[in-house]
Amino acid sequence: MRDESIIEQPAVQETLTLRYTREALRFIHDHAGAARQGHPFFLYLPYTFPHVPLHASKAFRGKSPRGLYGDVVEEIDWSVGQILAALRGERLAESTLVLFTSDNGPWLIKQSQGGSAGLLREGKGSTWEGGVRVPCLAWWPGTIAPGRAAQDLATEMDWFATALELAGAKVPSDRPIDGVSLVPVLRGAGPGPRHHVYYYLDTELMAVRRGPWKLHLKTIDPAHDQRKPITRDPPLLFNLSSDPSEHLNIADQHPGVIEQLRKDIVEHQRNLKPGKPQL
Amino acid sequence: MRDESIIEQPAVQETLTLRYTREALRFIHDHAGAARQGHPFFLYLPYTFPHVPLHASKAFRGKSPRGLYGDVVEEIDWSVGQILAALRGERLAESTLVLFTSDNGPWLIKQSQGGSAGLLREGKGSTWEGGVRVPCLAWWPGTIAPGRAAQDLATEMDWFATALELAGAKVPSDRPIDGVSLVPVLRGAGPGPRHHVYYYLDTELMAVRRGPWKLHLKTIDPAHDQRKPITRDPPLLFNLSSDPSEHLNIADQHPGVIEQLRKDIVEHQRNLKPGKPQL
Repeated sequence: MRDESIIEQPAVQETLTLRYTREALRFIHDHAGAARQGHPFFLYLPYTFPHVPLHASKAFRGKSPRGLYGDVVEEIDWSVGQILAALRGERLAESTLVLFTSDNGPWLIKQSQGGSAGLLREGKGSTWEGGVRVPCLAWWPGTIAPGRAAQDLATEMDWFATALELAGAKVPSDRPIDGVSLVPVLRGAGPGPRHHVYYYLDTELMAVRRGPWKLHLKTIDPAHDQRKPITRDPPLLFNLSSDPSEHLNIADQHPGVIEQLRKDIVEHQRNLKPGKPQL
Repeated sequence: MRDESIIEQPAVQETLTLRYTREALRFIHDHAGAARQGHPFFLYLPYTFPHVPLHASKAFRGKSPRGLYGDVVEEIDWSVGQILAALRGERLAESTLVLFTSDNGPWLIKQSQGGSAGLLREGKGSTWEGGVRVPCLAWWPGTIAPGRAAQDLATEMDWFATALELAGAKVPSDRPIDGVSLVPVLRGAGPGPRHHVYYYLDTELMAVRRGPWKLHLKTIDPAHDQRKPITRDPPLLFNLSSDPSEHLNIADQHPGVIEQLRKDIVEHQRNLKPGKPQL
């Protein structure tokens, strides 16, 4: 679709990444002059892949030892390179923040057509780390030093508040906003403002994170044939700093941490105004 | 013990890493002059830790967020740094090859006192990658560029033939030697000479590796309560290049690879002269 019009149906998926890239480059070039004069732009480029069904263009198909999934990732890597090169060519690199991230972990039941969560447990559809913890790369030459790693807690929801702050706009005050601005984290100026993550599956609270601690009230393991949440009572407690793979339940040793997290949940839910599902 | 004499019993384990380090530094300083005049030395420093029971010296205890295991690793890291600094101080860095490696993967049943195999499957006592694949760092300033990664197949057995070649000695010809020299791999001069790894549990052949392919004839999962080898018939086949976690058995799709590996096993065992167990 372009805006509200269907321009191709069914879509030729092999060329989607290529065509998205061309559109993104055109958008950058069209807005570069205004941007250099202080009118910044916002570009959101949600690649269709590596979601299944996977497709790569002719230039990338059959090239990766990792098979089609690898081909798709290599094409996305090429695409990102084109975008960074365009920003450099337009002398916008030092005034542009580029974020590269993902909405969730690998869809493990798709086997070689899914990704890998590395040492993290489980994958997409679960609230184990393999389902919810994703890479995020932030590129901003002159402001973010290459190779610096941030250890702060952050969620995708935080990019809204972050983008508004960077653009000099105000976060709306007429509704509750779940995100917080990550500007201090990006600038390396101090600890981030986020202290908790609450992990939901639809409207069910599954787990909570605070600092290194993660408490699971319910778990689901879609890649291991356990497709409905089961209640964990007593709950499971992991220290993600020392045990990122969530292998060592240490709930017995830290009753005080669990008590604190239970209080945090009560406080969180007291302030929560559930939204209407959009799907 | 020093040579054949017991000098302390029971050993004060807290200071073992510290004392090994001092001994190693003394050995380097004692042999440095001769080494600079063309009489190289061989130093083998097998740290007691991170094998359990874990002990760290006072300077490191309680310092790591990873607990005692992390303290132990930090102390070993300090120790290695002392050794590299001594070699630099003696102007021996460019004529010394330093290897840092491990005999096996983590002992998972020891939980937080064991290590982590990251994305590799299972651990010590198994012939899954988590049990047998280990890191190996080779340091040789001026010969090995920093940050270069070798993708060749290699085993600990190969360091014997490698050390002999580097020292200008000959591999004994009066007995079969299982190792091959990794000098070409270290120098980045071409592919290594090793094409197979045969994985044994005592005298039982469990698996074979050739290039990216690994075929499991038997498996054992000591960290998952399966403590005796079970026969896999049909065998399991994994492509470690695309699936390092050994999640995707693709035996059905590659009968030709399995046939070749079975022939390799017959050839290997025809030439094998079993040694007498030393334990």
